[in-house]
Amino acid sequence: MSKSIENFFYPKSICIAGASSKEKSIGYELLRSIKNYGFTGKILPVNPKAESILGYKCFKSINDIKGQIDLALVVVPKFAIDDTIKSLLVKKVRSIVLVTAGFKEVGKQGADDEKKLLELIRKNKARLIGPNCMGVISTFDDIKLNATFVAEKPEKGKTAFLSQSGAIGAAVLNSLRETDIKFGHFVSVGNKADISENDLLPFWEKDNRIKIITLYLESFSSGEELINMIIYQKIKKPVIILKAGRSSAGIKAALSHTGALGSSDSVVDAVLDQFGIIRVDDLNELFNTSKGFENFTMPLGKRIAVVTNAGGPAILTVDSLEKENLILSNLSENTKNKLRKIAPPQGSVNNPVDLLPGGTKEQYRKVNEILCEDKNVDAIISIFVEPVMVPAFPVIEEINSIKSKKPIFQVVMPLPEFWNEYRINSKTKTPLFKNSEDPAKVISNMLFYSNRKKIEVKSIKHISSSYSKGFLSLSQTKKLLKKYNIQLKKDQLITPNEIKNVAGKIKYPIVLKGISNKAVHKTEFKGVIVNIKNENELITTSKEIIKNFKNKKIDVEKFLIQPFIEAQHELLIGGFRDPAFGPMIMFGSGGKYVEVYKDTCIKSAYLSEKDIDDFINKTQIGQILNGIRGAKKIKLNKLYSLINSVSLMMLENPNISEFDFNPVLIKNDGSLHLVDVRIKIN
Amino acid sequence: MSKSIENFFYPKSICIAGASSKEKSIGYELLRSIKNYGFTGKILPVNPKAESILGYKCFKSINDIKGQIDLALVVVPKFAIDDTIKSLLVKKVRSIVLVTAGFKEVGKQGADDEKKLLELIRKNKARLIGPNCMGVISTFDDIKLNATFVAEKPEKGKTAFLSQSGAIGAAVLNSLRETDIKFGHFVSVGNKADISENDLLPFWEKDNRIKIITLYLESFSSGEELINMIIYQKIKKPVIILKAGRSSAGIKAALSHTGALGSSDSVVDAVLDQFGIIRVDDLNELFNTSKGFENFTMPLGKRIAVVTNAGGPAILTVDSLEKENLILSNLSENTKNKLRKIAPPQGSVNNPVDLLPGGTKEQYRKVNEILCEDKNVDAIISIFVEPVMVPAFPVIEEINSIKSKKPIFQVVMPLPEFWNEYRINSKTKTPLFKNSEDPAKVISNMLFYSNRKKIEVKSIKHISSSYSKGFLSLSQTKKLLKKYNIQLKKDQLITPNEIKNVAGKIKYPIVLKGISNKAVHKTEFKGVIVNIKNENELITTSKEIIKNFKNKKIDVEKFLIQPFIEAQHELLIGGFRDPAFGPMIMFGSGGKYVEVYKDTCIKSAYLSEKDIDDFINKTQIGQILNGIRGAKKIKLNKLYSLINSVSLMMLENPNISEFDFNPVLIKNDGSLHLVDVRIKIN
Repeated sequence: MSKSIENFFYPKSICIAGASSKEKSIGYELLRSIKNYGFTGKILPVNPKAESILGYKCFKSINDIKGQIDLALVVVPKFAIDDTIKSLLVKKVRSIVLVTAGFKEVGKQGADDEKKLLELIRKNKARLIGPNCMGVISTFDDIKLNATFVAEKPEKGKTAFLSQSGAIGAAVLNSLRETDIKFGHFVSVGNKADISENDLLPFWEKDNRIKIITLYLESFSSGEELINMIIYQKIKKPVIILKAGRSSAGIKAALSHTGALGSSDSVVDAVLDQFGIIRVDDLNELFNTSKGFENFTMPLGKRIAVVTNAGGPAILTVDSLEKENLILSNLSENTKNKLRKIAPPQGSVNNPVDLLPGGTKEQYRKVNEILCEDKNVDAIISIFVEPVMVPAFPVIEEINSIKSKKPIFQVVMPLPEFWNEYRINSKTKTPLFKNSEDPAKVISNMLFYSNRKKIEVKSIKHISSSYSKGFLSLSQTKKLLKKYNIQLKKDQLITPNEIKNVAGKIKYPIVLKGISNKAVHKTEFKGVIVNIKNENELITTSKEIIKNFKNKKIDVEKFLIQPFIEAQHELLIGGFRDPAFGPMIMFGSGGKYVEVYKDTCIKSAYLSEKDIDDFINKTQIGQILNGIRGAKKIKLNKLYSLINSVSLMMLENPNISEFDFNPVLIKNDGSLHLVDVRIKIN
Repeated sequence: MSKSIENFFYPKSICIAGASSKEKSIGYELLRSIKNYGFTGKILPVNPKAESILGYKCFKSINDIKGQIDLALVVVPKFAIDDTIKSLLVKKVRSIVLVTAGFKEVGKQGADDEKKLLELIRKNKARLIGPNCMGVISTFDDIKLNATFVAEKPEKGKTAFLSQSGAIGAAVLNSLRETDIKFGHFVSVGNKADISENDLLPFWEKDNRIKIITLYLESFSSGEELINMIIYQKIKKPVIILKAGRSSAGIKAALSHTGALGSSDSVVDAVLDQFGIIRVDDLNELFNTSKGFENFTMPLGKRIAVVTNAGGPAILTVDSLEKENLILSNLSENTKNKLRKIAPPQGSVNNPVDLLPGGTKEQYRKVNEILCEDKNVDAIISIFVEPVMVPAFPVIEEINSIKSKKPIFQVVMPLPEFWNEYRINSKTKTPLFKNSEDPAKVISNMLFYSNRKKIEVKSIKHISSSYSKGFLSLSQTKKLLKKYNIQLKKDQLITPNEIKNVAGKIKYPIVLKGISNKAVHKTEFKGVIVNIKNENELITTSKEIIKNFKNKKIDVEKFLIQPFIEAQHELLIGGFRDPAFGPMIMFGSGGKYVEVYKDTCIKSAYLSEKDIDDFINKTQIGQILNGIRGAKKIKLNKLYSLINSVSLMMLENPNISEFDFNPVLIKNDGSLHLVDVRIKIN
């Protein structure tokens, strides 16, 4: 574990450069938070004027501090940053949190300042959190550091939370007393000039006090590095990400906020799914899921039993199960017989088990215990709507006290007084859920993590080539593809003048394509004509294409002649390089309506065999190839091998910015025919 | 307004049959709620033993009550129901709430009891809410009736809330002090033996105190009646529905809970959308939306301005805009110039406008006012994350005090103390939102309502026919379709023996289909062969089909010969009768992969012209017909007229349970060719 990162969360001495005696100022509130929360180490405030602040003796300057400084929190005004950081580096401080704003987030000058600062930091082998951040928290008893300006007293937990937005961090801290969120470490990373999620993920992976890693991100610092950390198994703990900037407008807003490059949301979705990282939709789901991992045993599967004292909320729960791909388990006859002895006669012993509003704590206990014993049940959701005659607290506590290897997630809808009673008097303080729909998401997220696949490691050798920017020529394309054992359709490239010569010498039927550098989408130019059966047809057709091009004020430079294949299906295989996550592969229905049908699936080019299965199973065309609804099942070994080849091509040739094989024709015998191929170099 | 329904919400005298002196019993708690809330009329408890309960004099029996009883609340045990109801009817009580359970929801005997009870009620021209319900509430100052057993004191509002689940009703009442939900009327309708949403919707439509109608439903009593209420404009106020039972398992759970017939969720979705009823996903959205209608002016359009003091929450808001089909408005240059004078230099005057954490109430006021004046802005979302230096309450109140014709939705993320301060001290008590994503849903729901289309009324004459159950024969089908000016393709039906005779006399190319009553999906039996070009091919092909059928142990009974049409596209047009909503029409991509591509759109057969536009715009095949991506735009007048005809056919022939035209071939000239038609009678 790198000491300079460790010291952000486990310092024995902290210096507050810019401590202030002015209430409500950040330099004051930060020190107040540190004091209130009871930091266990040395507190060293620096202020040129004040003798002491909040009872702590102040140092006139950093140089006046004699001992070691493990962690420096810098809140001085922007103009004083340079001197402050230099003094800290002279004092050999290696861990600096820079709270002050006014860097990359405000424009060019700020970005330049940030760059210079970073060079200085790196030269001195120090590490920096921020700038433009709101600090760090470490809740463990031997540390008790709240170095943020929100003076709440967070409770200790096993979750690490990183926020790229100070405000989201503040909103979470503001709400702690209502949401009962607990964490071990909290960090607001601000502009991520130096330290980003890619530094903290491996740190938390090694820190035994942390069990779950949660991130609020607006951009990925290097998504490809993150992928590699997972491929090489440097991250095994559950990682839960709330990524803002789902919409194009949101991505734009995130760009102007973070100054980082944005990936399209479908790429983010695809990559996180592929590498077993849990993506959540909002902060509620983020913390509910981390509570799930921290407080409940792992569900063994997706068969869920529901017990309730009320029909309506149970129906909402059942709906949420299907939405999350979980199933209502079939209770065994044995279970039902046992339940009949406990449930009221007008209740239900089928799943959902209904105890009616009179359900008591004894009934709830027994029913939950019986359900835990049923082999058809992997997890239980127990719902309690507080009725007049049965107070909620004793029921909830009774269920909390059940010892079982299967998790029991409790939903409670009580009068408001319940919550304080629970916070104060509960022995286990097991998290409860307020909405019928919440546990299904948590269970589904936990199962997603436990079922994530083992990643295969590919051996990749980067190839440097001297192609110039733009689309590769046909001959360059052929040469490159040959390296990956990919054959283009046999074809002949001729000039318009040569048509008459050639027409008598070729084997029909053929496809004729007009080619010009100015016409990329040939079908829109009516530049491709298929199934030409003889010499005469060829000559007429070539004239038509020349005319169609003329209409768009373009000359046909060449004609491409290929054999006409009567294919079963048209596929699309393509790839591009994402600004954050690097090489990506696309698969789906091909042809000219690609953008209407949108039947495509995207994945990182770091593909395993199971990912290719996914391409097939998650697209409609893949299901058809697989023989759904009476369609002929087609052998897919050639397709698998082609996808493997193009993914390797993207991985090994970092200068390929995109490629597009559309359509790739597939015949009933599984043979593939690439009839239109474009590769672009950047 | 029917007096018997009016008396549920505006009674001057109420009788509580089954009032009890035993604390925590329903008969006691109900009376306690009524007392606590301060009912303004006469309270007449009936209990054979007690002299008085909670200070109210008790009557030994209903007969002992002298004056008029406007409303009776019945909580006696099941065995005493019959006598109690009879006594009430003798006393000419016309409005009865039956809280007691043990009817349809518990099985056959209960259902029979409920039926008998209903006959009795109907014979006496009384109306019944329940059984198995938790009562009614009317919050207006001249009434103040809380006749439920949850002793909360709801605040007055303009929303009516109906819950088909007592527990969901109870959960809402339990949470009132946290959620600040307000309503005018609350009703738990239980089993809906008599009174259902279809009685209360027209009542609330006429009640001027009610502005918004909200429903939690598990089943629709008669969806077709609801459709007709909207078609004939008996309901114009906003109606917001949370319908549980989205999933198949959820529908099953709802069935066993309510004993009602279930519609598939896609039908519910389609119908509510078609008739301008707002469907929400959860209780939060239900009440947020009703708060929107009640407290904010209607947004004029979908161009939204966002103002914030923090980047992160604003990005989440921007994401939510796109999700809800709203757009971030382009602020005018004039607006930006004005904003520059107010926003801090490092903030942003582009949308989202960022005032940074230091943003003050004065800045927030001015920015909101400037945004209100911009013609490009239809509504504003103003976000405030409480920082250390600026307390939330004064900022929020300042914004509340802005007078503007455009709505300003405020999101606030404060310390917990804020909420009580706001509840007590706010002058306007305008609802606030806790999550950045909430206002977008509310605005989108409000716009959905204000943009709902005017419904066209069709003249329909029900036709009774004497078809027997099952599929219509070919000749019956032709005859029925002819009435609606729908022509089948010319065809010839022959026996296998006649093939050789016929083969020389017909015009090629043709399609040959093998027919047997045992083979409905012909393509799966390889029973259809297209593009047969000559006599020889026909004879070979017929033998093939006979062999294919033999493989499935079926004999070919007849062969159908049709001209082969080289069609541009294959469409599906179908219809079915939904148990709740009646006649439905489907449109989409046809052919054998219908179930893979799932490119279909469903609507109620009560179609207007705009609904047919929707069929085209919301399906991929429709977009292709319309000429997307270089496809030839096809004239659709014949298609429109066919869809109109089949919808009329479904409306006029209630005995048609389903029909299926797949494929309907459409050629480039817009001509349609029905090649496979099935109509089923029930």
